[in-house]
Amino acid sequence: MDTKLLSSEIKRKKSFLCLGLDSDLDKIPAHLLTEKDPVFVFNKMLIDSLSHLIVAVKINTAFYEAYGSEGWISLEKTINYLNSKFPNIFTIADAKRGDIGNTSDNYAKAFFNKLSFDSITVSPYMGRDSIEPFLKYKNKNTILLALTSNKGSEDFQFLKTQNSKLFEEVIIKSKSWKGSKNLMYVVGATKSNHIKRIRNLVPESFILVPGVGAQGGSIVDVFTNGANKDVGILINSSRSILFAGNGKDFVTKSIEVAHSYQKDMEKLLISYK
Amino acid sequence: MDTKLLSSEIKRKKSFLCLGLDSDLDKIPAHLLTEKDPVFVFNKMLIDSLSHLIVAVKINTAFYEAYGSEGWISLEKTINYLNSKFPNIFTIADAKRGDIGNTSDNYAKAFFNKLSFDSITVSPYMGRDSIEPFLKYKNKNTILLALTSNKGSEDFQFLKTQNSKLFEEVIIKSKSWKGSKNLMYVVGATKSNHIKRIRNLVPESFILVPGVGAQGGSIVDVFTNGANKDVGILINSSRSILFAGNGKDFVTKSIEVAHSYQKDMEKLLISYK
Repeated sequence: MDTKLLSSEIKRKKSFLCLGLDSDLDKIPAHLLTEKDPVFVFNKMLIDSLSHLIVAVKINTAFYEAYGSEGWISLEKTINYLNSKFPNIFTIADAKRGDIGNTSDNYAKAFFNKLSFDSITVSPYMGRDSIEPFLKYKNKNTILLALTSNKGSEDFQFLKTQNSKLFEEVIIKSKSWKGSKNLMYVVGATKSNHIKRIRNLVPESFILVPGVGAQGGSIVDVFTNGANKDVGILINSSRSILFAGNGKDFVTKSIEVAHSYQKDMEKLLISYK
Repeated sequence: MDTKLLSSEIKRKKSFLCLGLDSDLDKIPAHLLTEKDPVFVFNKMLIDSLSHLIVAVKINTAFYEAYGSEGWISLEKTINYLNSKFPNIFTIADAKRGDIGNTSDNYAKAFFNKLSFDSITVSPYMGRDSIEPFLKYKNKNTILLALTSNKGSEDFQFLKTQNSKLFEEVIIKSKSWKGSKNLMYVVGATKSNHIKRIRNLVPESFILVPGVGAQGGSIVDVFTNGANKDVGILINSSRSILFAGNGKDFVTKSIEVAHSYQKDMEKLLISYK
């Protein structure tokens, strides 16, 4: 699906919430561990129960790779389930990939063709020719790390360059890349004071905002500083929704948390038609 | 295996050659395509035939992920084969990972625990807390992207900062991270004019050098500028060895190319005992 449909789903569902499936086998409810594929069952139950409250799902590849090819099978089952049952939920492979051209070609093939994700997160360090192989896919989005939510973002992203700071150089330069209209940007919710500046640099682009919940960012601050005429924001929450409960009623607890986020978002979206 | 054993293997085999298994199913010899797992058979034949000429194997995850969970199974079989039959070959997961702490924890678990690689390549953009989860593994090495071989390296890695350039800031800052003695660095062979400077910044660390062969770098230039008392260099070649031939005699062609690299290396290693 494209961002036009994403924007219309945001307005229809009155939500810009993305569910992050960091489905750590060590943390999922114990009663699911007797299932043949506990991670897929856990994901499926949450997707089914939260689909009216969310507009996007982000699958964090690390939590699947940690279990080798079995984990990769759980990942495949999850994205295939999403694509077949919920084609209007925007899907994100949170993979942070990026390499020389012929390698990035294969990452794009892996996530866009083989798995049919709508988008993938990528790291900018290797520059233009590491990202353009993703950008050449029409109707797919490539989400570039700009300013991340973690403490280590201060190490390099805020380094002063001759004209500005590294994260700003990344955003400005990326706009000149071939296919740049397919770019989105990762900006951490913990950096909401910088979101306004970033929104000015990329007025049209979607911004994916992790860091609400466990990491402490604020939905109101992000929206106030970052929303554009199409809303243009996805706020991701992973742990605070996934692991809201760990008993047999875990889904109810997850719905409660997701619903409280959605209600906050509905208030903010009141002027959007 | 640790870098001490790696250094002694380099001296024993008179080679600092790393075989890069970018085993693209579209390029491997046609007669192997009738095998149940052509990629694994291709890898196994090359490993068996080249084991006396190489000291390391680098597996590029993109080429496996492009085939989904089946590709991931080929990857698992390859690393398990290496670990069981050739424990003195140093193994590298060329994965370019890096994310917030609890995610990097899971990437480290995936590649160090589950797959038992000796090392992994990581991207520095997210800073200290994205890399330290890898560094806490004793006897495992983490190979940080510093200066890459591709054209896009000019976009950000050479950006002037207040004190120097981004790639130098990355190297200097990384030395202060907890467990930094487990760091190695990626420096492209096409950037051999910068290797001397980098060697001065990290006199003790191994440097992984891609970009010889298809990308055009020179073994002599890299060695002259980058070798330290323990040699301290791995030069990777992928396509020029893997796809030297594509008929039934492909292994012979691959041996010829790898042997010519090894002979060049042997001349350079003459003073190392």
